[in-house]
Amino acid sequence: MDISSLVQRNNTKIVFIILDGVGGLPVNGKTELEAANKPNLDALSRISACGLHIPVAHGITPGSGPGHFGVFGYDPIKYEIGRGVLEALGVGIELKKTDVALRCNYATIKNGIIIDRRAGRIPTEKNVELTERLSNQIKEIDGVKIILKPGKEHRFCLVLRFPENITEKEAVVTDTDPQKEGKPPAEPVPLNEESRKVAEVAKKFIEKAEEFLKNEERANYVLLRGFSALPHIPTFEEKYGLKACSIAVYPMYRGITRLLGMETIPVEGDIKEEVELLKKVYKDYDFLFVHIKKVDSFGEDGNFEGKVKKIEEFDSFLPEIISLNPDTLVITGDHSTPSLLKAHSWHPVPLLINSPYVFGGLVNAFTERECLKGELGIIPATAIMPLVLANTLRLKKFGA
Amino acid sequence: MDISSLVQRNNTKIVFIILDGVGGLPVNGKTELEAANKPNLDALSRISACGLHIPVAHGITPGSGPGHFGVFGYDPIKYEIGRGVLEALGVGIELKKTDVALRCNYATIKNGIIIDRRAGRIPTEKNVELTERLSNQIKEIDGVKIILKPGKEHRFCLVLRFPENITEKEAVVTDTDPQKEGKPPAEPVPLNEESRKVAEVAKKFIEKAEEFLKNEERANYVLLRGFSALPHIPTFEEKYGLKACSIAVYPMYRGITRLLGMETIPVEGDIKEEVELLKKVYKDYDFLFVHIKKVDSFGEDGNFEGKVKKIEEFDSFLPEIISLNPDTLVITGDHSTPSLLKAHSWHPVPLLINSPYVFGGLVNAFTERECLKGELGIIPATAIMPLVLANTLRLKKFGA
Repeated sequence: MDISSLVQRNNTKIVFIILDGVGGLPVNGKTELEAANKPNLDALSRISACGLHIPVAHGITPGSGPGHFGVFGYDPIKYEIGRGVLEALGVGIELKKTDVALRCNYATIKNGIIIDRRAGRIPTEKNVELTERLSNQIKEIDGVKIILKPGKEHRFCLVLRFPENITEKEAVVTDTDPQKEGKPPAEPVPLNEESRKVAEVAKKFIEKAEEFLKNEERANYVLLRGFSALPHIPTFEEKYGLKACSIAVYPMYRGITRLLGMETIPVEGDIKEEVELLKKVYKDYDFLFVHIKKVDSFGEDGNFEGKVKKIEEFDSFLPEIISLNPDTLVITGDHSTPSLLKAHSWHPVPLLINSPYVFGGLVNAFTERECLKGELGIIPATAIMPLVLANTLRLKKFGA
Repeated sequence: MDISSLVQRNNTKIVFIILDGVGGLPVNGKTELEAANKPNLDALSRISACGLHIPVAHGITPGSGPGHFGVFGYDPIKYEIGRGVLEALGVGIELKKTDVALRCNYATIKNGIIIDRRAGRIPTEKNVELTERLSNQIKEIDGVKIILKPGKEHRFCLVLRFPENITEKEAVVTDTDPQKEGKPPAEPVPLNEESRKVAEVAKKFIEKAEEFLKNEERANYVLLRGFSALPHIPTFEEKYGLKACSIAVYPMYRGITRLLGMETIPVEGDIKEEVELLKKVYKDYDFLFVHIKKVDSFGEDGNFEGKVKKIEEFDSFLPEIISLNPDTLVITGDHSTPSLLKAHSWHPVPLLINSPYVFGGLVNAFTERECLKGELGIIPATAIMPLVLANTLRLKKFGA
């Protein structure tokens, strides 16, 4: 059900922490959460409502977009977000409804054949310099404004800003990246009639960029991927009546949360700096999201010990977070990233909700297997936000 | 799935007990169910299928209508019941498809301003006398029969009985209650073209009532709320092939169950009288619903001890109910009403199903936390009735 009609505002505060990819699998009998020495998290689990959530559906391994959409209560099957859009938001471009966003690579072309899809991973400084010059050269094509922003190494972001609104349906254009070296680049092909004008501008951009880059040694071509326009998504304010902010070091997560209308506050560093920022802005928001990335990174690397240590590091900061005394504190992940798999996985993710209105006393530690005994059971990720709103008494009764 | 096509009739008997608002939250470490001394209920739980049900959806706090619809297997999001209809059924008006029902207040108006929305809570006897006179005065408006029935204090029920059928869509008219004193009453405004005739009659009723009541000191005006026509709901007989009766002291619950086609048998008193009636009519029905209200009432008052005592009182009558030897006995609540919250809540509700076809041996007591260990798990309320029919062998196999 759409709970927006039941939302009532009050002065409660919610702290919502994502330990990215926190769920794991046993290695020598223990998962990362089971191996970690985390007295604070375990103590909190004993007085909290615990359970596990299923990010998308049984057996489905989510990417970062669907993983976060789910825990924030946006059905990840209904709301799909284009890769280009995600990238653009991540590098700080404030997308408008008139925009088509793409993620691009500098590449090396020779005699019409792509010989390096990443232009030898040119240094980021080179990318910055090149993108600035390219940006000055190509400011507009057929009345469409061209916005470029460098990323790391060979990556950059392209936004085509049309004079009129562009719907998702008008941006269905194929990637030009041939995916393998030794092949010619593909044409940007519109997959429906409505997308022709976007494809046309993209084609002209490629031609102009190739002409401008022709004397570059390595970065003498551009590959375009992830054509996408802004999806229509209700904001946190519209959906839940929450003034929300997002504390995340990595661009992608800032991008996702900006899409949901959260204010994203720049922060560099890791857990320590994020917790410092949390404390600093705590008074200004109803809902404070903190994204902790590196738990996932170690999982992706297959570094069991590294993931354990990062969980332990988070545990050491937990008392500082608890001392803020939020009305509801949520700790979970957007998906599992077992070191064993070196990848995201489909496994249900441990979930903890602390508020004055829970039973507690059912689990002994914040682990996959203990959370199974908790009062929440195994629930869809999209059930988390209704529970969070309920626990802060922000939902009116349904029906008389 | 719609299970109606699988229903087969037999001679089994089902007793279905709702302890209204039975679920609670810990106060000093124990919930009301955990604090109560209830040896019979606990013993029964040990040989029953136990679990918890979610009345509407995760995080959603149900009103009494949705709470009961859910446990009776009617999706509370699909079947919404108008407040006027609920009230009319509750006071014993047998609504027809030609009716629009409203709940009304006597109010005090002065110079066009509502100065008391409840007419100083006039005594019920005064209301009865006034409503009878008003009823004799206004018997019909433009061919629409006017039916009035007094409630308690300042409340009464109005039914507009049209010569032709009225659909829900034709009764979408706004309340006239300004909600705050010191404001003029609102007009009844039709929210679509189809509802104009209902609004027109309502307006004339207000004018005639005002003229008739003008010399009353306090009850000199009427406020109209909850315009609604009968929703189309399949009956228990149609849906489940069950001849059902409802034993409930409070009007609202008789109203809800009458809407589902249950026979409602008048009863006054409390648990004792309800159990006596249950025994008396036991032989006449397949499905006997007993509604025990006061568990919820104490919860709403924040009276932890009162709620505990009421649960204990129910426990003392349980052996009498068990001695009827129903084929399936269900004990649950329509929602939780923790004394801690002094209100309905969203928490899953303990559920017990006793029949010869359960595992049992999994829980030690009928409490929120023990029921988590039970064989039913946490299920949607709408799953209860299919399970009840299954346990009485009233459902055929699905598919070959």
